[in-house]
Order: sequence, then structure tokens, then C-alpha cells
Amino acid sequence: MTGDVSYTAFYSGGKDTTLTVRHYFPEGLITLSLEYPKGCGSTVLAEYSEIEALEEAIRKELGGRKRGDALPAIKRGLDKSPYLRTSDERILEYKFNKLLFSEQTAWQLVEIYSTPDFGNMLVLDGYVNLAESDQVYSHNLMCKGAINYKEKDVLILGGGDGALLWELLQEADKPKFVTMVDIDEAVIRGCKDLMPSVSGGIMENLKGKNYEIIVDDAFKWLNTYKAEGRKFDVIFGDLTDIPVHEGGETWDFVRAILFQSLSILPVGGRYLTHCNGMNATNSLALFENLLNSLGIPLEFTTTKAFVPSFMETWVFYQVTKTAEGAEEGK
Amino acid sequence: MTGDVSYTAFYSGGKDTTLTVRHYFPEGLITLSLEYPKGCGSTVLAEYSEIEALEEAIRKELGGRKRGDALPAIKRGLDKSPYLRTSDERILEYKFNKLLFSEQTAWQLVEIYSTPDFGNMLVLDGYVNLAESDQVYSHNLMCKGAINYKEKDVLILGGGDGALLWELLQEADKPKFVTMVDIDEAVIRGCKDLMPSVSGGIMENLKGKNYEIIVDDAFKWLNTYKAEGRKFDVIFGDLTDIPVHEGGETWDFVRAILFQSLSILPVGGRYLTHCNGMNATNSLALFENLLNSLGIPLEFTTTKAFVPSFMETWVFYQVTKTAEGAEEGK
Repeated sequence: MTGDVSYTAFYSGGKDTTLTVRHYFPEGLITLSLEYPKGCGSTVLAEYSEIEALEEAIRKELGGRKRGDALPAIKRGLDKSPYLRTSDERILEYKFNKLLFSEQTAWQLVEIYSTPDFGNMLVLDGYVNLAESDQVYSHNLMCKGAINYKEKDVLILGGGDGALLWELLQEADKPKFVTMVDIDEAVIRGCKDLMPSVSGGIMENLKGKNYEIIVDDAFKWLNTYKAEGRKFDVIFGDLTDIPVHEGGETWDFVRAILFQSLSILPVGGRYLTHCNGMNATNSLALFENLLNSLGIPLEFTTTKAFVPSFMETWVFYQVTKTAEGAEEGK
Repeated sequence: MTGDVSYTAFYSGGKDTTLTVRHYFPEGLITLSLEYPKGCGSTVLAEYSEIEALEEAIRKELGGRKRGDALPAIKRGLDKSPYLRTSDERILEYKFNKLLFSEQTAWQLVEIYSTPDFGNMLVLDGYVNLAESDQVYSHNLMCKGAINYKEKDVLILGGGDGALLWELLQEADKPKFVTMVDIDEAVIRGCKDLMPSVSGGIMENLKGKNYEIIVDDAFKWLNTYKAEGRKFDVIFGDLTDIPVHEGGETWDFVRAILFQSLSILPVGGRYLTHCNGMNATNSLALFENLLNSLGIPLEFTTTKAFVPSFMETWVFYQVTKTAEGAEEGK
């Protein structure tokens, strides 16, 4: 176990079991990896408590090193991986009861899982979008209690789960009208059928006396509204998360949506959006740079809230247009 | 890549990097494990996006298999492991800013971490106990809004973080007196100094006009109270989690605490306790069996709540003593 080179020992046992022991020099780190295939019906080779006991025994044997960590088993090759990621790429293992809905649309992989902890949960391209446990998400997005929606003309870009639409229509001071534009019919259909609690069943009808759901491209409608000279008092950006890296198609999309949205707000109008996890600091910084580079006078504030099914704290932006921008007419 | 036996190929590269490729037959599962040492200052060998691209390339190369998962890097050998576990042994990677407090007491390893998502967070023996984000935990434990504490004589067993004590004393209908008995002075001291928000600073004084904190063995005090014939209207079990497996010292402790507590409750008195995560179903079943085997007539209900820093839904029990038990005098 001593020497000036790192080494790896590789042992194999019955039932395709392997044990890899590595010793990294000069860090002194020793790692053991136990790997084995496990069929659905078969039992585990070692319970976590046994792995923990092994770790402690090795630690004692090596003269009482004070540190040592045993990790729970990492499961590979399951029908659906139980591992999702935080915005800063930390691993999280979810408990799923069942995959209820799975459709690859032209835009994204739309999945809805039944979970014990969060109720039914919408996952888009491997990231949790919203679960039945997450009313706090919509409430923070709309700044419930801090913004009065009375007689406001509201536009939601995205929001296909219907939660924000529903929460806005629940306000005591009712908005005048809420228009929601989401491109992905599968999201709307899946959430309507499998997560009706988040939208109070309102998506059963695409149109009501004070709302309309348009299944179409948000950007196209922004252009239409701009051409018509139509303004909204509040616009919600409930589309994709803000990318962690600048550049590329998604970034261009975010910039274009933001610019067009701000240009159809009156002075004093609000653009309200989620951004990313609080630990995706690069993403937050890029978004703020973007806001400051649009050529439209604005002020912004932020709020944050822990969203249960995300298992992390999410950051929300409230942008207020303070004057008309010189570039907007172009 | 075909054949009727499983195989493992092991490649090594520069800087102690190894790549292990395994093919499990007959499942058809192929796993790749890339391992390398990374010093604090050095960069990662591959970003997650690169691993994801590699996974996709391999999938295409193999004829467009539809499934494949890339996992975020698992980090080993850090000063403090960022990995904790849920009650059903799922892996969770936390973001820690700093380890603020660490003491191995006679009872447990007491740690307090600063975290971006949950504020300061108390971890006992590797399990999150309470964070500044977790008022919902105390509120569920005490059934805030559903139980009236007016003029009640209350006993808290454990609860060294001070959160439950503080929340009880915040009730509009004040309890007559709250006695808290926690054995671990380090927990009280650490939480008083580093998580004062959860206890409103009340632990600065061990005694006030309507509360007292006793740093001692809860079981000893239960025996004393029983010998004195003293009764409490409400007793909180805010001690260790209920074990997942029956038997052993912890289980005997849980049983003894529960029995002695119920025997110093009047008929109609309440024993309120957390139990375990909702996915630790074995633990919940064992606890219910225990309740039904004490020989003391009782009824119980349960509530549950998602506790942010636990990243899972926790189950709470409300036990009401319905008559005196034959065994209690013994």
C-alpha cells in the first residue's frame, strides 16, 4: 500500500462480480469499486450497512485513518434511470413509482412520472419541470401577494403545465384576460390528463371567458402582437431554463424572446421569468448581462424559492420596463 | 460485442486515468466507467456535456439503441463527502459552502454546514436533522393549527436544535410550560451559535418563565417524572429516527421511550413524533407494530410533509392515549 506510483488492482469473482482497488499517489486516496449485475428478482450482494462496515474495517486496518466514505449503490441499466441532475450537475436519485407518459415530440422528450414524494411530475429532456408538490414555483413566478393582477392583460409564454394560468385566475383581484402560448401539445395533453390538480382542470377547455390557450410558437405570436401594436401589462417567460453557457441556438432564442417581449410591454410593464438554480451562478450572471445589453431601459429584481421536486433553490427575475428603447421599432 | 459470456476490458491512460468497459451477457448492458484523480486546482477531464455526447455516439454506433444514460461525476476522497442518503438509501449530492461545526460527542457526530439552498444545516451521523429552511418540519411535528396548546404542560424529548421549543412558544394560545430534555450539549451549543434563526435565540438562556432546557438523558427524566407521578399533556419524541430494521439497541431505546412516555400521559394526552421518510416503508410498518404491541390503549393518526433539506417527504405520528394500560404501573 506504499510506494511512489499509483496502482490499480482488479479482482473478479462469481456472477460477473468485480472489485477494483485503486491507490492514488501522492494523495493517498484509496478507492474500492464493487460492481455486479443484479436481475430484477435477485437480492443485493451487499447491503449498505455491510459496505459501511467494510469501509470502517479497512479504515481501522490502515491505522485508524479518520476519513472514509461509503456510497450507496449507483444503479445502471434500469428501464428508466432514477438519476436526475441539479442545475449545477449534482446527482440526485429520485424515487419513481411509474412512468405514466413518455413522448418524444419535435421539441423535447416529455415524461410524466408518478412519485411518492412529489405526486405526478413533469420531466422535460431529463430535467424536472413541475410536480404536483410545486405550487410555490407558480406563486414565486407571479410574485403572489406582491403584484396586483386586477384588470391586467397577461401573456404567458410557455407554461404548458397550466399551473401558472390556473394560479393567476385564482387571484381575488382577477386579471382582465390571460393568453397562454405553448408550442408542445403533448405537454398540455399530458399535464391535463395526469396532473389536473396543478391547473384545476382548466385545460379541459382551451378557451374560457377570461383566458385562452394557444398551441403554437410563442415567438411567432410575439411578432404578430408587435406588428398589431398590441401591448400586455405582464408577460411571463415560462419557457426553457436559461442556458449555463452563452451562445448557440437556445441562447439566441432566449435573447429574441426577451427582446420581443419587452418591446410589447408598455413603460411600467413587467416581464416575469424563472431563470435557473441558485448554484448555476454562471447562468444567472449571463442572464443579467443579457438584460443589460438589450438596449431597452429596464430595472430588475430577483426572488428565490426552494422548489420541492427540483430539490434546489430556484431564482426568479422580475423585469420592469422603465422607458421605450431606441431599438424597439426595428 | 457479442458472445455468450460477460467480459471486462480495462484501459489505462495518462495521469492515472482508467476506463473500464463491461458487457454483461445476457442482459446486453454495456457500462463504461471513467476514473481519474483530480487535484483541487486542476480541471475536469470531461465536462458532463462531453460524457453525454460520448454516450450518444456509442449508442448510434451500436445501431441506435434507444436507451443510454450518462451520470454526473461521482466525487471520492473530498474533505467532506457531499453525498448524503435518503431514508431509503438513495444518493443525494448536496452543495455545501463550508463545514462550520464538527464535534464527535459520546452520542453522535455533530456537524453544521453552511449551504446555499437550505441555510445552515445540522447533520447528525451523516443524516440531515434540521436546516434553517425547515420550519415545515416543526410545524408538522406539532400539528400547528390543528392542536391547541393553551395552558398545556409540554415535554420535548430531544429537539436540541431548539426549533420545536421556539415554535411552541410562538403559539397565540400559549402552553403553560415547555420542558425540553436533550442529552447532547454540542447540538444545543452548535445550533444556538450557528442556527439561531430556527430557535429565535431562545437557547441563549436555558430557563425562562415558561420553558426550561435540561441537558441530560431523556430516559432518566422520564423515569423521574413517572416516579413523581407527574403527567404531561403533550410529549414530543424528537429523538432518533425510527430504525429501518427491528432489534438492537436503538430499537429497544425507541420502545422504552415510547412506553415510558405514554405511561406519564393522562388519558387523552398526546405523544407526537416524527418517524422516518415515507419511502422507508419497513420503518413505518415496524413503528406501527410497536405502537400496537405496547399494551397501552391508544389511537394514532399520521401526517406527512416534504422537508426541504431532507429532500424527501417525512412521516409524523400523532398518538393519543385512550385509556390506562394494565402494564403501566410496573
